[in-house]
Amino acid sequence: MDEVKVIEIKKSVFADNDKDADLLRKELKDSGVYLLNLMSSPGSGKTTTLIKTINLIKDKIRVAVMEADIDSDVDAVKIKEATGIPSIQLHTGGMCHLDAEMTRQGLANVDLKDADLVILENVGNLVCPAEFDTGAVRNAMILSVPEGHDKPLKYPLMFSVCDLVVVNKIDVLPYFDFDMEKCREYVHMRNPKAQIIPICAKTGEGVEKLAEWILNEVKNWKNN
Amino acid sequence: MDEVKVIEIKKSVFADNDKDADLLRKELKDSGVYLLNLMSSPGSGKTTTLIKTINLIKDKIRVAVMEADIDSDVDAVKIKEATGIPSIQLHTGGMCHLDAEMTRQGLANVDLKDADLVILENVGNLVCPAEFDTGAVRNAMILSVPEGHDKPLKYPLMFSVCDLVVVNKIDVLPYFDFDMEKCREYVHMRNPKAQIIPICAKTGEGVEKLAEWILNEVKNWKNN
Repeated sequence: MDEVKVIEIKKSVFADNDKDADLLRKELKDSGVYLLNLMSSPGSGKTTTLIKTINLIKDKIRVAVMEADIDSDVDAVKIKEATGIPSIQLHTGGMCHLDAEMTRQGLANVDLKDADLVILENVGNLVCPAEFDTGAVRNAMILSVPEGHDKPLKYPLMFSVCDLVVVNKIDVLPYFDFDMEKCREYVHMRNPKAQIIPICAKTGEGVEKLAEWILNEVKNWKNN
Repeated sequence: MDEVKVIEIKKSVFADNDKDADLLRKELKDSGVYLLNLMSSPGSGKTTTLIKTINLIKDKIRVAVMEADIDSDVDAVKIKEATGIPSIQLHTGGMCHLDAEMTRQGLANVDLKDADLVILENVGNLVCPAEFDTGAVRNAMILSVPEGHDKPLKYPLMFSVCDLVVVNKIDVLPYFDFDMEKCREYVHMRNPKAQIIPICAKTGEGVEKLAEWILNEVKNWKNN
């Protein structure tokens, strides 16, 4: 099994996270690094989605991943083994989210000179991570079919702050009462501009659309 | 649609939640009310599980439900319509958990003279709710098959504080890489005494075991 670097993240001392996040975004812009913040519930398939997506884009742009978790380093190891790209594990020490300063602590362990895109896999949680700007250019989230199409009604802030909602595990649509049209309606109720990309990370279905979205994002951001 | 009472919960002012939780537990014991704290990820099937279980026990003991949610009152309405028992909605105002004082605010709106058991459906989240003692006699959680058997590795505290782990959605076991034996192993790594009950809330499979667990719990607690 590959070894990955495990970083123990300390609690932030910054009082104004929004200001700190703006500063981090500017620093990353100066370094030419696009930061994507990926959020979801536990078990929605973030890591599998990342692996499939990274394997589609890693020959076009340089990617690194930071895996945030309360405990364990299984995700960072999986990413490294399956994609070969740099992957580090952030331990949040029980904390339920990452803010900008905690993200900066993680980024200090990434070789930013060798990265066009850093993907932050946030703690699996639909509540707290939505409240803290990490300094990312965009927030994206994964909603998996078994969780149900009503989640935008119950976790409004998460769906409001995300520019992209990936609907994962569409292979099991026949076995769940998941209404994709209602899902679209509820997502757009929270954020009318949110893009929705249905995929199945396990089979790879739809993942090329997600890869395309990411490549376009990074390209447009670099040119602006 | 039935109307349900919606309570806007205020942030706690108590400094020592553990002490407050012990006090609430004592108050409830004096009132003869057993409080069960039910936790899980978003979309694991808490509400459907509650409906099926309550319909099996409501003729034997008097049950009331408090549904905690960031927003919306869909769960409390569903419970009331499907079971006929008293059900209120607690709005946490964006907060990711309930503590003892917040639970007490909710209980003030339940007719405790007419209840043997109050079930608190906590906010869908595997991180924060585990950190706060609500004053419940027991903590239970639902882990659904699509979330994966590795969750006890990633959310250690949640599995440590739960006396019962209900494994829901076993009807879709053939479509997911979920290893029930590994699940048992990982759950017991966190809490060797935890009971595990596999169910399918949708079809009702196994729910009678959950009902039996609850009835025994309430009976033993009343007799002690």
